[in-house]
Amino acid sequence: MLTTHPFDDDKLHEECGVFGVWGADAASAIAALGLHALQHRGQEAAGITSWDGHQFHTHRAMGHVAGNFDRDDIIRGLPGKVAIGHVRYSTTGETALRNVQPLFAELSSGGFAVAHNGNISNAMKLRRDLVRRGSIFQSTSDTETIIHLVATSSYRTLLDRFIDALKQIEGAYSLICLTSEGMIVCRDPLGIRPLVMGRLGDSYIFASETVGLDVVGASYIRSVEPGELIIVSDKGLRSHRPFAPVRPRPCIFEHVYFSRPDSIVDGSSVYSVRKRIGAELAIEDPIDADLVIPVPDSGTPAAIGYAQQSGIPFELGIIRSHYVGRTFIQPGDQVRHLGVKLKHNANRALIQGKRVVLIDDSIVRGTTSLKIVQMVRDAGAEEIHMRIASPPTRHSCYYGVDTPERAKLLAAQMSVAEMRDYIKVDSLAFLSIEGLYRALGEDAREEAHPQYCDACFTGSYPTHLTDQEDLAPADQLSMLAERIA
Amino acid sequence: MLTTHPFDDDKLHEECGVFGVWGADAASAIAALGLHALQHRGQEAAGITSWDGHQFHTHRAMGHVAGNFDRDDIIRGLPGKVAIGHVRYSTTGETALRNVQPLFAELSSGGFAVAHNGNISNAMKLRRDLVRRGSIFQSTSDTETIIHLVATSSYRTLLDRFIDALKQIEGAYSLICLTSEGMIVCRDPLGIRPLVMGRLGDSYIFASETVGLDVVGASYIRSVEPGELIIVSDKGLRSHRPFAPVRPRPCIFEHVYFSRPDSIVDGSSVYSVRKRIGAELAIEDPIDADLVIPVPDSGTPAAIGYAQQSGIPFELGIIRSHYVGRTFIQPGDQVRHLGVKLKHNANRALIQGKRVVLIDDSIVRGTTSLKIVQMVRDAGAEEIHMRIASPPTRHSCYYGVDTPERAKLLAAQMSVAEMRDYIKVDSLAFLSIEGLYRALGEDAREEAHPQYCDACFTGSYPTHLTDQEDLAPADQLSMLAERIA
Amino acid sequence: MLTTHPFDDDKLHEECGVFGVWGADAASAIAALGLHALQHRGQEAAGITSWDGHQFHTHRAMGHVAGNFDRDDIIRGLPGKVAIGHVRYSTTGETALRNVQPLFAELSSGGFAVAHNGNISNAMKLRRDLVRRGSIFQSTSDTETIIHLVATSSYRTLLDRFIDALKQIEGAYSLICLTSEGMIVCRDPLGIRPLVMGRLGDSYIFASETVGLDVVGASYIRSVEPGELIIVSDKGLRSHRPFAPVRPRPCIFEHVYFSRPDSIVDGSSVYSVRKRIGAELAIEDPIDADLVIPVPDSGTPAAIGYAQQSGIPFELGIIRSHYVGRTFIQPGDQVRHLGVKLKHNANRALIQGKRVVLIDDSIVRGTTSLKIVQMVRDAGAEEIHMRIASPPTRHSCYYGVDTPERAKLLAAQMSVAEMRDYIKVDSLAFLSIEGLYRALGEDAREEAHPQYCDACFTGSYPTHLTDQEDLAPADQLSMLAERIA
Amino acid sequence: MLTTHPFDDDKLHEECGVFGVWGADAASAIAALGLHALQHRGQEAAGITSWDGHQFHTHRAMGHVAGNFDRDDIIRGLPGKVAIGHVRYSTTGETALRNVQPLFAELSSGGFAVAHNGNISNAMKLRRDLVRRGSIFQSTSDTETIIHLVATSSYRTLLDRFIDALKQIEGAYSLICLTSEGMIVCRDPLGIRPLVMGRLGDSYIFASETVGLDVVGASYIRSVEPGELIIVSDKGLRSHRPFAPVRPRPCIFEHVYFSRPDSIVDGSSVYSVRKRIGAELAIEDPIDADLVIPVPDSGTPAAIGYAQQSGIPFELGIIRSHYVGRTFIQPGDQVRHLGVKLKHNANRALIQGKRVVLIDDSIVRGTTSLKIVQMVRDAGAEEIHMRIASPPTRHSCYYGVDTPERAKLLAAQMSVAEMRDYIKVDSLAFLSIEGLYRALGEDAREEAHPQYCDACFTGSYPTHLTDQEDLAPADQLSMLAERIA
Repeated sequence: MLTTHPFDDDKLHEECGVFGVWGADAASAIAALGLHALQHRGQEAAGITSWDGHQFHTHRAMGHVAGNFDRDDIIRGLPGKVAIGHVRYSTTGETALRNVQPLFAELSSGGFAVAHNGNISNAMKLRRDLVRRGSIFQSTSDTETIIHLVATSSYRTLLDRFIDALKQIEGAYSLICLTSEGMIVCRDPLGIRPLVMGRLGDSYIFASETVGLDVVGASYIRSVEPGELIIVSDKGLRSHRPFAPVRPRPCIFEHVYFSRPDSIVDGSSVYSVRKRIGAELAIEDPIDADLVIPVPDSGTPAAIGYAQQSGIPFELGIIRSHYVGRTFIQPGDQVRHLGVKLKHNANRALIQGKRVVLIDDSIVRGTTSLKIVQMVRDAGAEEIHMRIASPPTRHSCYYGVDTPERAKLLAAQMSVAEMRDYIKVDSLAFLSIEGLYRALGEDAREEAHPQYCDACFTGSYPTHLTDQEDLAPADQLSMLAERIA
Repeated sequence: MLTTHPFDDDKLHEECGVFGVWGADAASAIAALGLHALQHRGQEAAGITSWDGHQFHTHRAMGHVAGNFDRDDIIRGLPGKVAIGHVRYSTTGETALRNVQPLFAELSSGGFAVAHNGNISNAMKLRRDLVRRGSIFQSTSDTETIIHLVATSSYRTLLDRFIDALKQIEGAYSLICLTSEGMIVCRDPLGIRPLVMGRLGDSYIFASETVGLDVVGASYIRSVEPGELIIVSDKGLRSHRPFAPVRPRPCIFEHVYFSRPDSIVDGSSVYSVRKRIGAELAIEDPIDADLVIPVPDSGTPAAIGYAQQSGIPFELGIIRSHYVGRTFIQPGDQVRHLGVKLKHNANRALIQGKRVVLIDDSIVRGTTSLKIVQMVRDAGAEEIHMRIASPPTRHSCYYGVDTPERAKLLAAQMSVAEMRDYIKVDSLAFLSIEGLYRALGEDAREEAHPQYCDACFTGSYPTHLTDQEDLAPADQLSMLAERIA
Repeated sequence: MLTTHPFDDDKLHEECGVFGVWGADAASAIAALGLHALQHRGQEAAGITSWDGHQFHTHRAMGHVAGNFDRDDIIRGLPGKVAIGHVRYSTTGETALRNVQPLFAELSSGGFAVAHNGNISNAMKLRRDLVRRGSIFQSTSDTETIIHLVATSSYRTLLDRFIDALKQIEGAYSLICLTSEGMIVCRDPLGIRPLVMGRLGDSYIFASETVGLDVVGASYIRSVEPGELIIVSDKGLRSHRPFAPVRPRPCIFEHVYFSRPDSIVDGSSVYSVRKRIGAELAIEDPIDADLVIPVPDSGTPAAIGYAQQSGIPFELGIIRSHYVGRTFIQPGDQVRHLGVKLKHNANRALIQGKRVVLIDDSIVRGTTSLKIVQMVRDAGAEEIHMRIASPPTRHSCYYGVDTPERAKLLAAQMSVAEMRDYIKVDSLAFLSIEGLYRALGEDAREEAHPQYCDACFTGSYPTHLTDQEDLAPADQLSMLAERIA
Repeated sequence: MLTTHPFDDDKLHEECGVFGVWGADAASAIAALGLHALQHRGQEAAGITSWDGHQFHTHRAMGHVAGNFDRDDIIRGLPGKVAIGHVRYSTTGETALRNVQPLFAELSSGGFAVAHNGNISNAMKLRRDLVRRGSIFQSTSDTETIIHLVATSSYRTLLDRFIDALKQIEGAYSLICLTSEGMIVCRDPLGIRPLVMGRLGDSYIFASETVGLDVVGASYIRSVEPGELIIVSDKGLRSHRPFAPVRPRPCIFEHVYFSRPDSIVDGSSVYSVRKRIGAELAIEDPIDADLVIPVPDSGTPAAIGYAQQSGIPFELGIIRSHYVGRTFIQPGDQVRHLGVKLKHNANRALIQGKRVVLIDDSIVRGTTSLKIVQMVRDAGAEEIHMRIASPPTRHSCYYGVDTPERAKLLAAQMSVAEMRDYIKVDSLAFLSIEGLYRALGEDAREEAHPQYCDACFTGSYPTHLTDQEDLAPADQLSMLAERIA
């Protein structure tokens, strides 16, 4: 079963996953496996850079890891005992290969490759300054800003240049960099995006999620801590703390949807958290029904939790096709309305005449919910009670997640009652923000210093949003409104 | 969630799915959708033949329906209100395009296209005779035999020639044929492979399973009956019974594994049957445990049934990657042993220290079971009790299913106790053949005239196996032994 | 320099070239080289069938020999010491791979592969009869008729069946067939299409032209004679004469345009014949001018002959691009008129203010001539005297050459004076039919029994044209008119 | 016929051709045609950048212009009335797409695209300095140095920055740059590589050779002069002279081999010069023979000149295949020695028993000459007298031509007599350097200030070779030796 729900364009999308391995034979093959396990974090492109002690080797390709990085000729072209890799989901139309990571540059200190998960929220401003001084950008990626800041830094050692660069950037970044002197791994002071560390024999492994460790047989050591900078070289591993300490605010949506259920994120089992979310939902909004049905696959753990808490049986009322990638274009106009059925089919024999609780992880635009509810209704459900395993998603994310503009977020435009009518269910309930914090094991959300970045639900952004503030006044106003809201 | 488990090479594979539509605009687009829903029945190649009232148009391609038949240019090249289609899984190395169906020939009566699910068990003998008389075969497919029998028949009308051909063949066949005079749909007298009929507005739809009707929004009418031959033309639909009546024996494995859980096969909900199978398993072999875990996705309905019957909680202890097709080749020798983890990952946080009941649909070679059990053990399970949702698979199928030779079927070589030791579980139990018939709503298996073809479990083959009997004496002996067994 | 002029769609096109090798290591590699040298006879597709003593292996591909049959993996897949091959130019839209030769069939006597240069002029009639009796055709190719005639012949030995088949067909055929018993090579009684024989060490080589021998280092023995049937097997080479003797009439256009200038065709050097043609032109139509300029490359040998005879200097007044295949589509409407310049450019510095004699091999539709004359005029030529190295092309060919329908042949619609005005030259002259025979070393054309097939110039067809006569009466009339003309 | 001889790897190769169009509808389609006509200057990759008044659009591809830039979708993606283009032959293994031109960068002044023919002889030194200051290079191309020099220049206007950049570079450059303010066209002070200007209606066209004007129907105005910088914008065309005047030394090899025979280079018809070269050869080294035979196609104009001067008839003794690109890999080891015959075939019927004068343009490694002489000998030639239409090629080129290292240049290792024995001809003669200057219309080579760059023949390099001088002392010595020689 399952993991997340990558094919649905009515979901928020994680933009990236990163992976690094230091000191293992066949490092690039290990990186390929690790990236494959992180594929749900970015399906549009992938890349690996290896270092063989003398030279850097890079291969980047549009498409999945499988089909590109499972080819012997590709892996043979990436020799060495050190490798870093990246999977990418592109938010814009700009999907050119030159934006695919790892980005690589020859600096005066030697080769420098970087794989980045997150988003730099003052990248546009920094870029304008750099171009003015003669820097030439290869890509439209915010990540390239980091490389130019390192290249033009006036400090002497590479490490000092790198820290100089980091101190100029704001936003979210889990970084794995490869240089001829060692691998540099770093997580932003707030720890917005995840990053974990493991061991495989004598080698070190870094990955966005623990499933990247599992797939290569590595053991999980711990998370890279927010604000921590680690250098791995032939001399071993050294940990630095270059930033002033602040209270971390890791992304809460990793637990709701992004991470795979079999991952451990910042110490918590994602599967367990999702089951507790389902249980909280059952407590907050009890209903009398015959069946609990997940929208597969992302709603399944919460549905199991809901069923166990409520005593209503868990059933597979919607069957999902294994053969739907994003590429199936429905041929012909007459059949266009059949779209959702390519992905899901209602289990009519089960549903007919029943009162169902339908569990999904979140509602973004609402377009898919509308179709799924209609499909379940057509299959003969007597009542449909929709339960959403997170609070209403009302605000855009600027930290490396692909969110539609606010105007397209259903919950930014409608009350819960309006949404219930819009998607045509008998009842609709979202988990409360407090319920979500409870499911995560917190007593309550600390209003002054929230334990997580929950900006998509609350509008409380943990960093400056410089590039957003540089927008036209009208946009600024709506931005400010959003931050105050 | 789920449906069947197409990526695993340690499963039996259905070889084909067929689809037909008569009298609808955009018939080939409808056929593409229908074939997409039947993709689990054959992943190696697909084809569609349409008839526009004047000409036949065929496109056949290696690979999935998506990526081939979702392209506008392809569909525009298949005009007309009538179309038939086929998805194919190839059993042999011979995967050349000329074996991909629908097969097409220009006969003296005009064009003749055929899509076939099943296998003709005297095809080799018939072929030898036809070649001797001057027929030239284009493919190595058994299906082409039917076309040559029609072409060389001495009867006058096409229908008489077709029936003349059918009377010479033995084995399993659900056929959808397209001629300029109408569509001919036929199911062998025993009804070994499934075939259903539906309506979409004024048009008729035929498909291997009801999911092919669901995806296009068609309503389900009934199964095409064993031994029934239906002609659909501009004059409407006529049903014929060209064969002497015999007691049907449809394939029992469709209910165990092949069909999608959301299909209705010969009147039964596949999902419900699988849940009852799980319940029977819990009754036949109760065990004290903490969790019921399916091997995803094919074991899931049975696991739900087991959990509901036993009261032990159903949990997702194994997470399946969405991104594994059959094409992922593990790069590099050092990492080859990691294979199974590309597809599945144990949910360690859940499993650790627990006694688990692991549910799978069947055991073929046992190679995958071995790895999955090891993975669950490594994740810290204290006890593993494996329960299989079917009887031991001990015999080859000659009716359109890809089975390994007997020597590679684990259950043909070992007792249950030996298998338990081999795959290293604390206990192992298979469903009894009687339990399986009970789950299907029968009081008992009628030994004299079994209600289903269960040859893979019992060795009781319902037809002559002429081509097998033509083999060398040693092979014949082992064949006979198998039939007697 | 030169050879023929394959890229120009205003030329007649040879439809095929054939090649065979018996008894050499790396037979398929030798066949690939031979076909490459025959590429000018057919550019759309190529194929090779080899026999390794046990099995036949076939690879067929759209496109050139280079890029398909120069790949190691392809050649390794065609093992054995015997191979036949084919290059094909398709006359119709039907360019599907199944029409690409060698065609292959499994007959009751074993495998049978055939490569055919020519055209069977009663193929449609024979096909209708065969289909009526139950034969199923794979292709739309006339060549397949031969295979079915062999398959259904009532004779016993393969050789008798093959001769039985040949006696039923009319038209042009140079055939190379491969069976498990030997290679069968045959040329029709009139010897319309060429075929030569050579030796390479102990092995025998057959090819449409001697350049196919040269490229592999084989020595030229002789032409296969009209009406000769040769069998090569492990027992050596045997020659048969299965047909009643008739006076041969090989195609005269091979000497004018089709064959490469470095080939020996039926005993004559093509280059020498073309130079003599040029000399005859200079004698028949002398003119006072400054330069003799060929339309490259097909007009070059005649232009050299003309220059040597007339004493006017031979110069390169038109330069041809090396980089024009047929695939260059001119982008954008505004630039469409620039077409001819992609292929040819006038050497303005040379031409300006000069009186030029422009030599081309033939005029088909006249479209290219029109453009080339305009280009030469634009480059400043004072006078342009066009001389054509053949008589006016007034009739279609039914023997394996792609000719436009008569209505599109310029010379079928206009007198020479009208053509002169149409293509806007100061004077225009064609070689006389007598001049052409003189250039070939004949004293005169024997009206009763012409020494060559010159139907494209004279309308005198050497065989029945059964399929043409089966056409509607109106078409028949125009056909008859053509034969009488 | 002919033009140059692009397929032969035993030739010097021009590395690039450039093209620009300002102010024409369908500018990119025009650029595609122009580049197609310049294809002989670079066959490995091509690119076009267009400007639509708002945005720059670039498409670059490995392979020929035809097949890439004749596709409607590609051209539609390059809108606007302004476009520049480039064809490239790569000298090193580094053929990655990022080295394909036009190179493009977003500078603070806006977009900047550059197409460059030539080579910057101090590029490596400049690059090291730029990287030290923080510039990040995208490619390994020397051309990118220019862009970074412009980006980091301290001048204010784009024109001043560009001139500042040019003043720092040494070597050969014919440049066409595209900015949002206009097109900048520039030729280095020595005018080493060619560049011409033409008009097409109201638009300006720039191209490496006049054939690029001819193909689009543009009229030839004049060469861009050595040291001239032209800006074309909506305000019209302005010519600048930013450099101190020096005596030009355009490349003499353009006349010998690189340019197409139908081009006008720096005022001279290439075809006429080559014919005069042939005549000079006949005067310098007369011989008694039966036939003059060119090595097609590059030896043809000189052979015609030789024949006209000597009175010995010009004949096509070697026929060249139209179907040989560089991609034909000879399949199988046994047939590898047949290589040269794939490209050329001797016209045996013509050659047998004759004394031939064989004309080729130059000898580089001598490997092809060896094979061609052997082929002509095998065809029965009684005597072979080889005449080379240029002096011995003894020195490497550092100005944008792909030359083998000196050690592989036959003439750098052997005397003429030794070469004669090595390639096994009865006599061998090269044109003298004085004869070459005479053919170009000069009275004599001015030793102090030679009128052409003839370094490949004389070792007299017209610029510093900074990057060469930075090499290790041993290499320097051999370099110096070469310059003194």
